[in-house]
Amino acid sequence: MVQGTLYIVSAPSGAGKSSLIQALLKTQPAYDIRVSVSHTTRGARPGENHGEHYYFIPADEFRQMIKEDAFLEHAEVFGNYYGTSRPAIEKVLAQGIDVFLDIDWQGARQVREKMPQARSIFILPPSHEELKRRLHGRGQDSDEVIAQRMMKAVSEMSHYDEYNYLIINDDFETALQDLRTIIRAERLRTGRQKLRHDALISKLLAD
Amino acid sequence: MVQGTLYIVSAPSGAGKSSLIQALLKTQPAYDIRVSVSHTTRGARPGENHGEHYYFIPADEFRQMIKEDAFLEHAEVFGNYYGTSRPAIEKVLAQGIDVFLDIDWQGARQVREKMPQARSIFILPPSHEELKRRLHGRGQDSDEVIAQRMMKAVSEMSHYDEYNYLIINDDFETALQDLRTIIRAERLRTGRQKLRHDALISKLLAD
Repeated sequence: MVQGTLYIVSAPSGAGKSSLIQALLKTQPAYDIRVSVSHTTRGARPGENHGEHYYFIPADEFRQMIKEDAFLEHAEVFGNYYGTSRPAIEKVLAQGIDVFLDIDWQGARQVREKMPQARSIFILPPSHEELKRRLHGRGQDSDEVIAQRMMKAVSEMSHYDEYNYLIINDDFETALQDLRTIIRAERLRTGRQKLRHDALISKLLAD
Repeated sequence: MVQGTLYIVSAPSGAGKSSLIQALLKTQPAYDIRVSVSHTTRGARPGENHGEHYYFIPADEFRQMIKEDAFLEHAEVFGNYYGTSRPAIEKVLAQGIDVFLDIDWQGARQVREKMPQARSIFILPPSHEELKRRLHGRGQDSDEVIAQRMMKAVSEMSHYDEYNYLIINDDFETALQDLRTIIRAERLRTGRQKLRHDALISKLLAD
């Protein structure tokens, strides 16, 4: 059976990561590519569904999963736990489906350690001015809040070279095409092709 | 300066390798992708130009180049030498141009050893029947000659898994698109993007 590929995708806030992943999923069937759904201990907000946006679980269950080494990565944010279940990911990959994992550089490091075969993609905004503009949002935030966001973005970006691929999100359609190109090229790697075309290769070499 | 990538391409006779490379070059400018030109000690045939089809050089000059370790790979075939000049390849790569090197698995092994950063692509025919059909050519060859060709093809194919990428040349346009996809994805690798977008990245991280 052909295994899917796990893609780690990171970017500073304002680089357009979520829009790119959403656009990618719109044109790819669910048997082809999926986005990883995280486990969390925080409560569901209105409109959020269990199994779709998150797996909402109690804190003691989360801690039990940590003990059992069931997470590829996990973190505590403002008193709530968030994590990526290893068995959940592996179940999807085993069906030959590629999985996208939207996490920061710290989560990425944890995942790489536990699953070295994962591929990673970093997305950068096209310019400093554009990043600033995007971080300003609707102009309702204080300068201090924006300055903090910018600091966090620069901190995230400083880890771009830990990733296999780097996409500059200047033109959205080009960046989306870049993402598709990476996926298609990774599927052409010999290891993956070998499994997919197993019967053909055996036949060719039988003579 | 951004370095080009060296692509090693191998395939059994009859897989359509030459047609694919020719089609690729037709749509790519010379400042983007080039095919490596080999050195050889055999005489030029009518229509062959020095520097275009081969660099035609005397045997003592070739042996001198071997001594100086100037070849990425070389081989003797029917009493003539053939080889790929390392300085010639490096000069083109230094201009940011990708170079395609059309060689067999033995040459590929030599190149990988001397230039581990080279990427390699193997091309397979779509079926055993189609391979046989293509090796029959115009039907003017003896069964013995065809059997020998088939044996050589199977021997070459048995090394497919030493390559980074595997393309099945079933539909020609799809295989050509596969080739282009690999080139584009390799250009999105962080190492290469880092050099290409050096100024942008410095600016983004300066804050």
